[in-house]
Amino acid sequence: MGMRCDTLWKDARLATMVGNDLGVVEQGLVAAANGAILYAGPAADAPTFDAAESVACDGRWITPGLIDCHTHLIHAGDRAREFEMRLDGASYEEIARAGGGIVSTMRATREASEDDLVRAALPRLDALIAEGVTTVEVKSGYGLDTASEIRMLRAARRLGTERPVQIATTFLGAHALPPEYAGDADSYIAMLVDEMLPEVSRLGLADAVDAFCEGIGFTPAQTELVFEAAKRAGLPVKLHAEQLSNQHGAALAARHGALSADHLEYLDNAGIAAMAASGTVATLLPGAYYFMRETHLPPIDALRLAGVPIALATDCNPGTSPLTSLLLAMNMGATLFHLTVAECLTGVTRNAARALGVSDRIGTLEAGKRCDLAIWDIERPAELVYRMGLNPLHARIWSGR
Amino acid sequence: MGMRCDTLWKDARLATMVGNDLGVVEQGLVAAANGAILYAGPAADAPTFDAAESVACDGRWITPGLIDCHTHLIHAGDRAREFEMRLDGASYEEIARAGGGIVSTMRATREASEDDLVRAALPRLDALIAEGVTTVEVKSGYGLDTASEIRMLRAARRLGTERPVQIATTFLGAHALPPEYAGDADSYIAMLVDEMLPEVSRLGLADAVDAFCEGIGFTPAQTELVFEAAKRAGLPVKLHAEQLSNQHGAALAARHGALSADHLEYLDNAGIAAMAASGTVATLLPGAYYFMRETHLPPIDALRLAGVPIALATDCNPGTSPLTSLLLAMNMGATLFHLTVAECLTGVTRNAARALGVSDRIGTLEAGKRCDLAIWDIERPAELVYRMGLNPLHARIWSGR
Ligand SMILES: [Zn+2]
Ligand SMILES: [Zn+2]
Repeated sequence: MGMRCDTLWKDARLATMVGNDLGVVEQGLVAAANGAILYAGPAADAPTFDAAESVACDGRWITPGLIDCHTHLIHAGDRAREFEMRLDGASYEEIARAGGGIVSTMRATREASEDDLVRAALPRLDALIAEGVTTVEVKSGYGLDTASEIRMLRAARRLGTERPVQIATTFLGAHALPPEYAGDADSYIAMLVDEMLPEVSRLGLADAVDAFCEGIGFTPAQTELVFEAAKRAGLPVKLHAEQLSNQHGAALAARHGALSADHLEYLDNAGIAAMAASGTVATLLPGAYYFMRETHLPPIDALRLAGVPIALATDCNPGTSPLTSLLLAMNMGATLFHLTVAECLTGVTRNAARALGVSDRIGTLEAGKRCDLAIWDIERPAELVYRMGLNPLHARIWSGR
Repeated sequence: MGMRCDTLWKDARLATMVGNDLGVVEQGLVAAANGAILYAGPAADAPTFDAAESVACDGRWITPGLIDCHTHLIHAGDRAREFEMRLDGASYEEIARAGGGIVSTMRATREASEDDLVRAALPRLDALIAEGVTTVEVKSGYGLDTASEIRMLRAARRLGTERPVQIATTFLGAHALPPEYAGDADSYIAMLVDEMLPEVSRLGLADAVDAFCEGIGFTPAQTELVFEAAKRAGLPVKLHAEQLSNQHGAALAARHGALSADHLEYLDNAGIAAMAASGTVATLLPGAYYFMRETHLPPIDALRLAGVPIALATDCNPGTSPLTSLLLAMNMGATLFHLTVAECLTGVTRNAARALGVSDRIGTLEAGKRCDLAIWDIERPAELVYRMGLNPLHARIWSGR
């Protein structure tokens, strides 16, 4: 009589992501019970299992289910018209006059019902799911008033009931300044701190709090007010930092024990040292780098040297990264940022889990973690990074099924 | 009693690609009979049809079926290991010593049976088809001996019987020098001209002839011998030209009335003028530009000014462009090459047909052409170029069904 389990995946090669590299097991198996991993490792070392269902993997590779740890998946409208105008040579002023820019997404999102927002996001979510993604972070930040931000977060939570996927929500009220506060960002932040964030927190709608610290976003001082309010609400923080210029946002985030600092093209050594000291994850977003034709690379080598964990995400959003493929984000990480295959793959699994503060629950194939698996028709993990536009997913398991 | 037809697609918006731009028709319909388009245009101007089947398109957009006019879809093996080594910092010498490079693809392809080649290519073809591609050009060029080149071309033709798609085959024996001719490219070309090309032509396996004119490929003089042999065989020519350096290949191709010159990063003004005079299409391959981290852009503005028709293709191949998404090739064309939305879309329809010498049969929505349609869940054609990783195809029609 063996150990009872619900499902046993046999004859698989595993990239467990345990340890510093991919944690490869050439002849492995995974056993799950009650939605959690009972065992993942060499078949030779496994206990005998008495499985309700047994799946022959025929040597296929199993990785942890992929994690997209930075998205703006919930939004209404698109910015295809603006994209077209830009290619036709229109100036930013002309685009703004034609109703483009982030304000256009805010307007469309404010007008949309919760159902509208869910309906618009599902094709994007389905594209991620089709590539083996099992956890998706979703930010607010296009509502920019209390009711609309709450509606966005409710819609985000709804995604997790519409599909077999884990949604992590992030309150990003400090994404942009809504027009009704034009010229008075301090008042907007005061309202956010006094009203929006406490209400979002009271409703349990956010798992973390984020802000956009940038010349065209909010100042470090304003960001710090948001972080302090998050702390009072008991919520972890993260930050859009150093995307377009060095605002020393990453160091500020690290000082507040941020889970992650994201983008980081203009990060300096002091920021890197601060992130290394606080264990803050560097979430790189090559889709936005590519789509915005950025040429200033994030300091990859220095991040590596300092031992800062690196995550990769799609940054799926209508203005600067209309990307719904985490496989392609990995290819861009390798091609544009010169990340290694192992860095790309740990960046969408183990380190992405850490960027969401849930590495105790997901991100590796280890006993006790949720049984989120991606099973791939590939001969080596590098294929997941190397190809562009081919989806070799064979099967996807979320919470053991 | 109306005009009889097999199928009528009603209530559609059309991008017919007729004329200089997208040829937009806001309230359009398409009628097909016997696999050909009977009518495509404004519903208001259409004759009354008596249709066996009528399809309500609910305002969806219809474009011509997409055409991928430059691929190396048939090959065995992949180069993911080499990709991984390169990211880990391996030199080209180390990669070559580990069995990488084009020779590794040649070895794997020579060892593969025709069935193996078809089986390996089908997932790549299916990825293209899933995005509305209805015609795919496929080159030989990894066999590099007569029997293996013929096997590749037979496998390419087979793809067109395995799936509802039109395959255009191109003989690319002059792709690389096989090791058995090392140091003696002239002898290889002599064999190609005397034996391979006539045999391929006799068997009716090639629709066109291509060569790789480059410092690491073949010289202009050798290329010219291939073109002359193609002419004797009655086959049109095209050329991999100016990808890594300016060999004046495009001008040579234009002199031989080539259908297209492809890549063109290092094309000069004389080459552009020659292409404009001969009506040779410039087929741009942004996937290879991106994947190889090329930084030298093709001369887009000068091509535009000269009125050279521009096509876009995936260049799907294991070494320099493992890309199987023509939608993503369009996004790269816009993002990396600054092409407009209209240039991208005509580049994978009207001008891609011209690059294959079949603009009389496909590439636009016009009466008399084959009824190849892509029907899209989009609000404007720009969305097809703007998004990355989302496939909005609603339905695909090949030869009327
Ligand atoms: Zn973001
Ligand atoms: Zn090629």
